[in-house]
Amino acid sequence: MNSSAPLYEGKAKKVFATENPAEYIVQYKDDATAFNAQKRGEWAGKGATNNAITAHLFPLLEAAGIPTHFIEQLSDTEQRVKAVTIVPVEVIVRNIAAGSFSKRLGVEEGEKLSRPVVEYCYKSDALGDPLINTDTALALGWASEEDLTRIRELALKVRDFLVPYFEKRGVTLVDFKLEFGKLPGGEIVLADEISPDTCRFWDAQTGEKLDKDRFRRDLGGEAEAYAEMLRRVTSEV
Amino acid sequence: MNSSAPLYEGKAKKVFATENPAEYIVQYKDDATAFNAQKRGEWAGKGATNNAITAHLFPLLEAAGIPTHFIEQLSDTEQRVKAVTIVPVEVIVRNIAAGSFSKRLGVEEGEKLSRPVVEYCYKSDALGDPLINTDTALALGWASEEDLTRIRELALKVRDFLVPYFEKRGVTLVDFKLEFGKLPGGEIVLADEISPDTCRFWDAQTGEKLDKDRFRRDLGGEAEAYAEMLRRVTSEV
Ligand SMILES: Nc1ncnc2c1ncn2[C@@H]1O[C@H](COP(=O)(O)OP(=O)(O)OP(=O)(O)O)[C@@H](O)[C@H]1O
Ligand SMILES: Nc1ncnc2c1ncn2[C@@H]1O[C@H](COP(=O)(O)OP(=O)(O)OP(=O)(O)O)[C@@H](O)[C@H]1O
Ligand SMILES: [Mg+2]
Ligand SMILES: [Mg+2]
Repeated sequence: MNSSAPLYEGKAKKVFATENPAEYIVQYKDDATAFNAQKRGEWAGKGATNNAITAHLFPLLEAAGIPTHFIEQLSDTEQRVKAVTIVPVEVIVRNIAAGSFSKRLGVEEGEKLSRPVVEYCYKSDALGDPLINTDTALALGWASEEDLTRIRELALKVRDFLVPYFEKRGVTLVDFKLEFGKLPGGEIVLADEISPDTCRFWDAQTGEKLDKDRFRRDLGGEAEAYAEMLRRVTSEV
Repeated sequence: MNSSAPLYEGKAKKVFATENPAEYIVQYKDDATAFNAQKRGEWAGKGATNNAITAHLFPLLEAAGIPTHFIEQLSDTEQRVKAVTIVPVEVIVRNIAAGSFSKRLGVEEGEKLSRPVVEYCYKSDALGDPLINTDTALALGWASEEDLTRIRELALKVRDFLVPYFEKRGVTLVDFKLEFGKLPGGEIVLADEISPDTCRFWDAQTGEKLDKDRFRRDLGGEAEAYAEMLRRVTSEV
């Protein structure tokens, strides 16, 4: 375990420096937050589940040609990653209308989109991660044209890998949020996590929600849903 | 004047059918609204001023290679236009941060953008014209890829014409909103209006606001500001 103070403590994870400046240790917490941290909770095992799911998926993405920050899982709640400079533009990929998208645009939750939608948000808790577009990211210097082109390409590649991966495991991937970082050499890599905190997962048969919406919407059973997602993600099919 | 009922009555204009199904008459009203019509007002001469400014600018844009819906000015408050199917995607072009952009992104009003930002909003009063991106417009069938490419091209062409046009007349064009329509043959043309209702105009010397922000922000002097803009727009330089 880590005894030093974290470099950064977020809502769901702590990031620790290591002896090697090129590597960080990410520790997944049991805290849950929603609606820009206005709603708070926690449950035992959440951190371990998200750590395990991310640690399972990132090497598969890497093998599918998507460079990631992931190095290795260290413990139940910890993983070693490459230190990156996070691009302050969160990327949301949507296959089916849900959540804020449905609400904002009056599109019923569950409506399949005729093509994937990639949305960009400015990563700023103070501003509530507002929706932006690529012109805005460029004009305000948050990313270069080259970076944004690469980020979009990688985000769609992640989608193309994950959609059938989950489908085979009886899960519909509704939407997901990605973060990308830059290595010192300038390479863009997938960073952060992929978990029920950052994806909408619906059981393909029943439509049951197996993600953070259980917590956001007070549906209960979040611990069971996250555990079920870990089982599905790690199951051989 | 028109005696029949309008085809459509908006917040600032009425649209009338004519004997010719390919043409409409647009009548500019003295009503002013802001914040999705939560704030309402009016002043004598507003409709005439906006009609005159639009009727002056559209032929100049047309001559600069931007196809528009404008045919001719008919009276103080009326103009004849080509009937189009309005693309339900409003286009905002920003040169300088202001208004909702500044607020949403924490960028000080008046900060010059390092490059123009083109934003798209879904034209829906019920939803408050929410910000979207081109992926969303495509996925929800609001416009085709070809239309969006053309719309962006024309919007930037409008900017390239208007910025120096106003600069020469002592006005900084901060941002503006455009609407595009489709002719029966499929051609995209600039529609609606260009006026102090749809642009932010700042006096280049004093920074004084010469647009609807006077009304939105209760600054007073809106009638004088609009009249001053008509004088500047129509002045030979
Ligand atoms: N490889 C990495 N190098 C550096 N920072 C990273 C890396 N991977 C993820 N991060 C950052 O570490 C933090 C993880 O913490 P957490 O997910 O709890 O943040 P958060 O509460 O979501 O808030 P925010 O992401 O808005 O700071 C995030 O800020 C994330 O961008
Ligand atoms: N050439 C045209 N053919 C058909 N419709 C047009 C044309 N030009 C503009 N319009 C439409 O006519 C209406 C003008 O009315 P007005 O500007 O008052 O509307 P509004 O209050 O801004 O509300 P909204 O535009 O959201 O309906 C707009 O809906 C505009 O899109
Ligand atoms: Mg996070
Ligand atoms: Mg209008």
